[in-house]
Amino acid sequence: MHSLSIIKIGGNIIDDETKLAAFLDVFAAVEGKKILVHGGGKLATKLAEGLGIRQQLVDGRRITDAETLKIVTMVYAGTINKNIVAQLQARGCNALGLTGADGNAILAHKRGGAAIDYGYVGDVDTVNAPWLTSLLEQDQVLVFAPITHDGKGQLLNTNADTIAQEIARGLSGTFKTTLVYSFEKSGVLMDAEDEKSVIGKIDASYYQELKQRQVIFAGMIPKLDNAFAALRSGVGSVIIGRAEELPQLLAGKSGTTIVP
Amino acid sequence: MHSLSIIKIGGNIIDDETKLAAFLDVFAAVEGKKILVHGGGKLATKLAEGLGIRQQLVDGRRITDAETLKIVTMVYAGTINKNIVAQLQARGCNALGLTGADGNAILAHKRGGAAIDYGYVGDVDTVNAPWLTSLLEQDQVLVFAPITHDGKGQLLNTNADTIAQEIARGLSGTFKTTLVYSFEKSGVLMDAEDEKSVIGKIDASYYQELKQRQVIFAGMIPKLDNAFAALRSGVGSVIIGRAEELPQLLAGKSGTTIVP
Repeated sequence: MHSLSIIKIGGNIIDDETKLAAFLDVFAAVEGKKILVHGGGKLATKLAEGLGIRQQLVDGRRITDAETLKIVTMVYAGTINKNIVAQLQARGCNALGLTGADGNAILAHKRGGAAIDYGYVGDVDTVNAPWLTSLLEQDQVLVFAPITHDGKGQLLNTNADTIAQEIARGLSGTFKTTLVYSFEKSGVLMDAEDEKSVIGKIDASYYQELKQRQVIFAGMIPKLDNAFAALRSGVGSVIIGRAEELPQLLAGKSGTTIVP
Repeated sequence: MHSLSIIKIGGNIIDDETKLAAFLDVFAAVEGKKILVHGGGKLATKLAEGLGIRQQLVDGRRITDAETLKIVTMVYAGTINKNIVAQLQARGCNALGLTGADGNAILAHKRGGAAIDYGYVGDVDTVNAPWLTSLLEQDQVLVFAPITHDGKGQLLNTNADTIAQEIARGLSGTFKTTLVYSFEKSGVLMDAEDEKSVIGKIDASYYQELKQRQVIFAGMIPKLDNAFAALRSGVGSVIIGRAEELPQLLAGKSGTTIVP
């Protein structure tokens, strides 16, 4: 079984040209099959501001109305995705940029039933694993923008963490998968104020203990719940840490590795 | 040898939601292998105006400065490309949206040496025919945005007519190619004021005669010169006419067919 790394990078890398270039250097050098999933960063917000489009927030969460969907499609699938692809090509890495609509890669449905109408936000139904597998087997490096479609002509804004997880789950039958969530910290920290207090490895029982001791709290809980959910659906391992340390993350020398 | 249709649609279709939907209905129904190349339309100009970015014109031609390149990448590769892909998927047509950077599909270089600096405008060097062939053989329908790259990380704005022609040339060794240029008229007209005066077929010697009689003049001359150049490099046939009449164009029942 071939190994496959699915690496999600967040806005802190995308918004910083120098950091992004340094990350793409190390990403291009990662051995084996790989998929990059990128988020949005601040560019979409800036563009909306430039055009005088008000961001609608409900309970602190952004609503993807029709105008916002246009903006994120432009920025995520256009600017960010194609610049990453061109920069990877320059590094000898044969990248192909995709949204969920391309090749019907990720089919989703508009989120419904919630108390809040989030607008054109997609929850993932299926990943087209056979097609993605055939692309990976041709040594194509896939770069996903966080946009899916509903199969009826509607594009949908979709969380990049979720896309990375669904792709990892969908391809775990065919590949030995490693899912890397990069964020702005060195990993899961024993002391939130101390970047050197990274917990190297967390399994399910240790996770329960850390939650009880309130070492892990707030925003880290959904992240880790997602990681354990991924492991339960066949993903080989989940690593959380800084994108800049990607080689060390994949080698288990940096960040936090989540194991069942 | 399989047949392959390469169909270029212009701004008049892209700017009109109803026309575009009707075109995608007939495009989805076209039999055999097919590639769609779309231009930009007025959306890029509107977005630039909305953001207060001045379009630089030199001798009436638009200059692609860094800001304009960002705009066209957003609009062409983001908005237009992904909406067409999603709408084709809804019509059971397995579309994959591409720029020249994706899979190194079209390598270009920044235009240089001209008296005018057009900015980030690309002239095509090579089309990755083996890769495009392998995608077409998997029954993928390709949708190209008019953006290429230079292999060094730079995206480049590239004329959609040229992209369609270069793809047709590049794939003519493998497929029996038909290149369709759609525009706002029914075809090459004997009388520019009479849409019913379409000339059904033009070969090289008839073209010379029509030019001498000044039936063909101005903007039609580069279009037809390009068509004959395509035929000389192996393209099977070139058809010029209205996108809405695509089935009739491909059947030779409408528009102007250019033959050697």
